[in-house]
Amino acid sequence: MTEQQKNAITLEMAGESVGRLTLNQPETRNSLSLAMLELLDQRLQAVSADASIRVLIIAAAGPVFCAGHNLREVQGQLGDSAAQLALFRRCSEVMQRLVALPKPVIAQVQGVATAAGCQLVASCDLAVAGVNTRFATPGVNIGLFCSTPMVALTRNVHPKHAMEMLLTGEMITAHRAEQIGLVNRVVDDELLAEETLKLALLIASKSSRTLAIGKEAFYRQGEMSLADAYDWTSEVMAKNLETQDAREGICAFVEKRPPQWRGE
Amino acid sequence: MTEQQKNAITLEMAGESVGRLTLNQPETRNSLSLAMLELLDQRLQAVSADASIRVLIIAAAGPVFCAGHNLREVQGQLGDSAAQLALFRRCSEVMQRLVALPKPVIAQVQGVATAAGCQLVASCDLAVAGVNTRFATPGVNIGLFCSTPMVALTRNVHPKHAMEMLLTGEMITAHRAEQIGLVNRVVDDELLAEETLKLALLIASKSSRTLAIGKEAFYRQGEMSLADAYDWTSEVMAKNLETQDAREGICAFVEKRPPQWRGE
Amino acid sequence: MTEQQKNAITLEMAGESVGRLTLNQPETRNSLSLAMLELLDQRLQAVSADASIRVLIIAAAGPVFCAGHNLREVQGQLGDSAAQLALFRRCSEVMQRLVALPKPVIAQVQGVATAAGCQLVASCDLAVAGVNTRFATPGVNIGLFCSTPMVALTRNVHPKHAMEMLLTGEMITAHRAEQIGLVNRVVDDELLAEETLKLALLIASKSSRTLAIGKEAFYRQGEMSLADAYDWTSEVMAKNLETQDAREGICAFVEKRPPQWRGE
Repeated sequence: MTEQQKNAITLEMAGESVGRLTLNQPETRNSLSLAMLELLDQRLQAVSADASIRVLIIAAAGPVFCAGHNLREVQGQLGDSAAQLALFRRCSEVMQRLVALPKPVIAQVQGVATAAGCQLVASCDLAVAGVNTRFATPGVNIGLFCSTPMVALTRNVHPKHAMEMLLTGEMITAHRAEQIGLVNRVVDDELLAEETLKLALLIASKSSRTLAIGKEAFYRQGEMSLADAYDWTSEVMAKNLETQDAREGICAFVEKRPPQWRGE
Repeated sequence: MTEQQKNAITLEMAGESVGRLTLNQPETRNSLSLAMLELLDQRLQAVSADASIRVLIIAAAGPVFCAGHNLREVQGQLGDSAAQLALFRRCSEVMQRLVALPKPVIAQVQGVATAAGCQLVASCDLAVAGVNTRFATPGVNIGLFCSTPMVALTRNVHPKHAMEMLLTGEMITAHRAEQIGLVNRVVDDELLAEETLKLALLIASKSSRTLAIGKEAFYRQGEMSLADAYDWTSEVMAKNLETQDAREGICAFVEKRPPQWRGE
Repeated sequence: MTEQQKNAITLEMAGESVGRLTLNQPETRNSLSLAMLELLDQRLQAVSADASIRVLIIAAAGPVFCAGHNLREVQGQLGDSAAQLALFRRCSEVMQRLVALPKPVIAQVQGVATAAGCQLVASCDLAVAGVNTRFATPGVNIGLFCSTPMVALTRNVHPKHAMEMLLTGEMITAHRAEQIGLVNRVVDDELLAEETLKLALLIASKSSRTLAIGKEAFYRQGEMSLADAYDWTSEVMAKNLETQDAREGICAFVEKRPPQWRGE
């Protein structure tokens, strides 16, 4: 991999215990070519293994957050079904890697997030958007329904709201995205990085061990029946209490002092 | 079937590639008697088979969109459990026919939509309502809980919002319905037909093949686990790319020209 | 059990056919110690068996609705995993008892509802909140993620909204809780009891038999596929029609007179 290829997604510390991945190919509208997906996956694995990072921000350089798949690449593979399937499977793996990452992930979204770019936002645990950001799942406009982005989208918003985006392919505003549950907060564009970092720092002040336990439990229990979910999360709570950080947290609370997290 | 019976639900073209079914029994508040359900099912099957229709609008004549089951009919069958069960099963089949229809369906709702009428709105892919429209699931007022309408309602809105409608039986306004996710848009009553048609025409400008692939995938993946949903929709995307319309759409996009859909 | 212990949760009639449980340990912020959970469970079983109660309100005395588990108790059990697990299982059972209770339950929430207290609100069928009420799942602040409260929370609101509460541990306002679907209505603090009672009385005017049938169907069908849900609720409707109250309700409707419920 050349230096230029590696720079297509940068990883840096944005603040105390907060990492930031930046999609950095504005010339291709940060589109998720297979190479970008591979690089994103590598970066996510690096973040996963890096104990100094408690919370991850996913940001982007340029006027477009992410335009989805690279349509020139898709066009070049027309007729090669195996290659196409491999591309969509790889993208789906990376999106699920975000869900499985044992650290909270916050999308910092500006400009435009479309198709797999909108899916990327939906796949993050939280999302903050600049007020002028727009979102769409426009695959229907090119005869290719956004069927994989839909998996993430429909798990974020009500069905009629998802259906409207998917069937019309039209842009929605950041305010509409906030209304329907696709993003958590809308802020002035010039405050986007600052406000996202503030949210990340707040979460990074918690125990990384607790965050990891909770995030995993969140997604797993969501796919269970109510009875199974309670059965399993009761065990999660009991095990959580065996961690050093929970003992410290509870003692600190009772003793009215700030806790000292060890991430254990 | 007499001419009058057939006219109880009319089918006409509302615009280019847009069909419109109109519930046309204002004298019974467009109630869903068994005969109306049978006719609606026939009409839906005709729409399904009619290649000239890409998008379907379901509208209604008179001051009431649809008042649900015909209570005189239900009363006449009291004591005949088999007949009652058959009626509810038939209604459930028709509602699922809407979901399975390989074409987007938009409810154009005015006046009042209650019980199975509210279910009809919830079962459509999209819904536009006139500003003075009201919605309710009032079965609880007659001792017959809206248990089948609830299936569609709870798949559209948050549980506490559904529960409030179901337990109180009270009307909610169009604005409230829009807030909670039961309808997509609220428009002036006199603009209802026009605005619904505009939305339908926008969707009808897409490839019918793509819409069919996407709609089926929408509902099927929604009942799967995240991993299964991604696995399956990745295949859907790859197969979608083998269609003529996807190839055309992607080439048109890259060549910066409008696509020509063939519905294949 | 001493008189004082029994008074920790009181049960009284709040109005015609409306019972009200009041968490009455303001000195411990109505925290759900094992003893309080046992008492709550006893009270719920009493309500379940009491035919004079058609609708239940759960209210609280003092400035805090409910602060969740009793952290001193939890601290005292640190190291005793079996005891911890038993506590969380017991709490989960009580929350599921609310869901299984064959009568609608309305949370009347003032002050602060946190952790298992927020879960209690989410586990009720409906919730009314005073305008100055605040909600949080702050377990992350003490190293103990709100994994069991999350089960109820994520079944009420969109995932990004739940995740924000769970990861930040921060308070949200009553208005925000209403926006995201955690509570049905926000009212002036001084009108809270009155407005909640009004809602309860409205629901209590319905047939208790119908309410029981509907509430059970609501939660059971919600965990089924669309096809199974329709299949099963069609049977529920047909059986509902065999009840005295449905026959009475339908005849009263057709005869344009008020129905007389017998609860059968």
